[in-house]
Amino acid sequence: MPTLISVRPDTTGRILSLHWDDGSRSRFHAVWLRDNCPCPDCRHPGNGQRLFTVAELPEDIRIDAAMITDGALELRFEPGHRSRFGADWLHTHRYDEVRPQAAGWLDPCLETWDRGLARHPPRGRWPVLLESPEALAEWLALIHRYGFALLDDCGVESGTVCRVAERFGHVRETNYGRWFEVRSEINPVNLAYTGLGLQVHTDNPYRDPVPGLQLLHCLTNDAIGGDSIVVDGFHAARLLRDESPKDFATLTHWPVPFEYRSSDAWLRAAAPLIELAPTGELLAVRFNNRSLAAPRIPLGAMPGFYAAYRRFAEILERPELHVRFKLEPGQLFIVDNRRVLHGRDAFSGSGSRHLQGCYADRGGLLSTLAVLREVV
Amino acid sequence: MPTLISVRPDTTGRILSLHWDDGSRSRFHAVWLRDNCPCPDCRHPGNGQRLFTVAELPEDIRIDAAMITDGALELRFEPGHRSRFGADWLHTHRYDEVRPQAAGWLDPCLETWDRGLARHPPRGRWPVLLESPEALAEWLALIHRYGFALLDDCGVESGTVCRVAERFGHVRETNYGRWFEVRSEINPVNLAYTGLGLQVHTDNPYRDPVPGLQLLHCLTNDAIGGDSIVVDGFHAARLLRDESPKDFATLTHWPVPFEYRSSDAWLRAAAPLIELAPTGELLAVRFNNRSLAAPRIPLGAMPGFYAAYRRFAEILERPELHVRFKLEPGQLFIVDNRRVLHGRDAFSGSGSRHLQGCYADRGGLLSTLAVLREVV
Repeated sequence: MPTLISVRPDTTGRILSLHWDDGSRSRFHAVWLRDNCPCPDCRHPGNGQRLFTVAELPEDIRIDAAMITDGALELRFEPGHRSRFGADWLHTHRYDEVRPQAAGWLDPCLETWDRGLARHPPRGRWPVLLESPEALAEWLALIHRYGFALLDDCGVESGTVCRVAERFGHVRETNYGRWFEVRSEINPVNLAYTGLGLQVHTDNPYRDPVPGLQLLHCLTNDAIGGDSIVVDGFHAARLLRDESPKDFATLTHWPVPFEYRSSDAWLRAAAPLIELAPTGELLAVRFNNRSLAAPRIPLGAMPGFYAAYRRFAEILERPELHVRFKLEPGQLFIVDNRRVLHGRDAFSGSGSRHLQGCYADRGGLLSTLAVLREVV
Repeated sequence: MPTLISVRPDTTGRILSLHWDDGSRSRFHAVWLRDNCPCPDCRHPGNGQRLFTVAELPEDIRIDAAMITDGALELRFEPGHRSRFGADWLHTHRYDEVRPQAAGWLDPCLETWDRGLARHPPRGRWPVLLESPEALAEWLALIHRYGFALLDDCGVESGTVCRVAERFGHVRETNYGRWFEVRSEINPVNLAYTGLGLQVHTDNPYRDPVPGLQLLHCLTNDAIGGDSIVVDGFHAARLLRDESPKDFATLTHWPVPFEYRSSDAWLRAAAPLIELAPTGELLAVRFNNRSLAAPRIPLGAMPGFYAAYRRFAEILERPELHVRFKLEPGQLFIVDNRRVLHGRDAFSGSGSRHLQGCYADRGGLLSTLAVLREVV
């Protein structure tokens, strides 16, 4: 981190300029600094939570004096308060280089991929993750970066899929239970429970909130076929943006309803197939041909929606986007279900194929990763 | 529902006009109709899931022939397929009156409220909900409509809060456990676990995904103070929109980071304080002075953000928006945590105040409500 070499409030006292020894400058507003004061009167010393409300911030807050002591920033505000900020914290939280970005931008921590990822798929080993916080952090970081990872040597004990989820977070229980069995059934409540092939999809777009993570653990797989496929939906969405900006704009704008119905559940949710933040950040992809319900879009926009939906589906079907693998007994894979689509080939024959799946939330995974990175 | 009296494809065969006996007209596209064909070749007869992909839909699909038989619509497509649609289904799913709406629009099922709701707060009785599916459906419908409801006669047994959540859905386990104790503690990991007053807030805006529902069950409450407050965040957001459109636009645009840190968790998430769908629908409100982290917004926009944030906070503090009540032992309240803020007065004195809380998802509640409405 660069060192703080000088500070200077402007003539109004409402903006402070910080100069760093790498030649760069950062400006901060008095109101922002006052709001983020870390002193024990402003933040609870035990848990760091803020002890005042924004209404309690003086509206005309100004910086009365600013100086550098022991490399840190010391401030006196008018009306009166004194604050001290670490230089590293200020550098990390500087904001005067924040610029609008093009629609579909991604957090630079994420790396998009195509079938080339199959050469060195992100993976870990379950017995190692149980022993080593470092290895666990590494595996979680791979999931964060790629939205997909394999896990080997999990054994074939029923319920293991939940134990893996609990290693970093909490199982999200749903109408399918804490975990669910994925195998061919006589009266399937879901096409996943047949031998049919499944086009690449995200799970449960009809659920609010949509599952953030899906884990699938293989107990048996000696059927003919049934290979797994994963696709980076963020890569596909950005291909759509680059190849056909109009179609990308269409799919980011119109909400599409999804629906699932069984004897004990009737789940419905609507959201765009490609979800952006208001600032254009790419947040999520939803895609599931089985559960997409009747779109409710203005008449004039409907043909354009179907054209864009078709084009996005065609991109998702390109073999160069597909990472294919045959899940072996004792193997598990995890996907970021708001980013990575998964599917499978049809399977049949005298053998059987039996997976167990469960859902978990992204927040728990990222929290565990952040805590581990502090300690390992 | 009106009766279908005539149908006519246009000359291209790509749009079908339906005329109803109430004088209205609905138009449907050939591609939409083909995509939503309910026949057993297109939808799995057992679970209703679609059996084809959008890429398998012929791109140049046209309607070759259309007629009404037994009140239903029969179609022949070119390339060849035959479909039959119930008239009621078509009327329910018609889309040619879908129009863009002003930013901040709400699903007409929702009703916004202010302190007037305190005269007849939405409420149910736990023993009745256990016995009667009708009463359960009624209580769930109140939660859906108002984002808030009371539940009386729950007793004071520990863990009851989870049993109430399980009556309609599934508990969302988090780093706070399946449920958490809200009472004054010596070394609180959260300011909720002190006797301090809490400004109205939504819970866990730092969590991804944010909890959809929060339940709070009172076991003891003989402290002085500690009254509960709930505020309709959707009402407040629309007041902001009407009183200060610029501030509303600011808060719907810029993502704001929230953060929570303890020895075993480090949760971070960023989203706008007021969340709209791309079509302008009001989806969620996030507000929590304790856990709002340092905003990362372009320099020129920062003062405007703080002005808008302050104004929204001032609206949320207006007494005429506050429904206040003292939770009695054996009472529980539930809020839609993406809509309704809750808070409390400070409490102290020789008595004690002990609540138990848990989280659940909105999808599970709405699913149970939909299933019950079909059967009761």
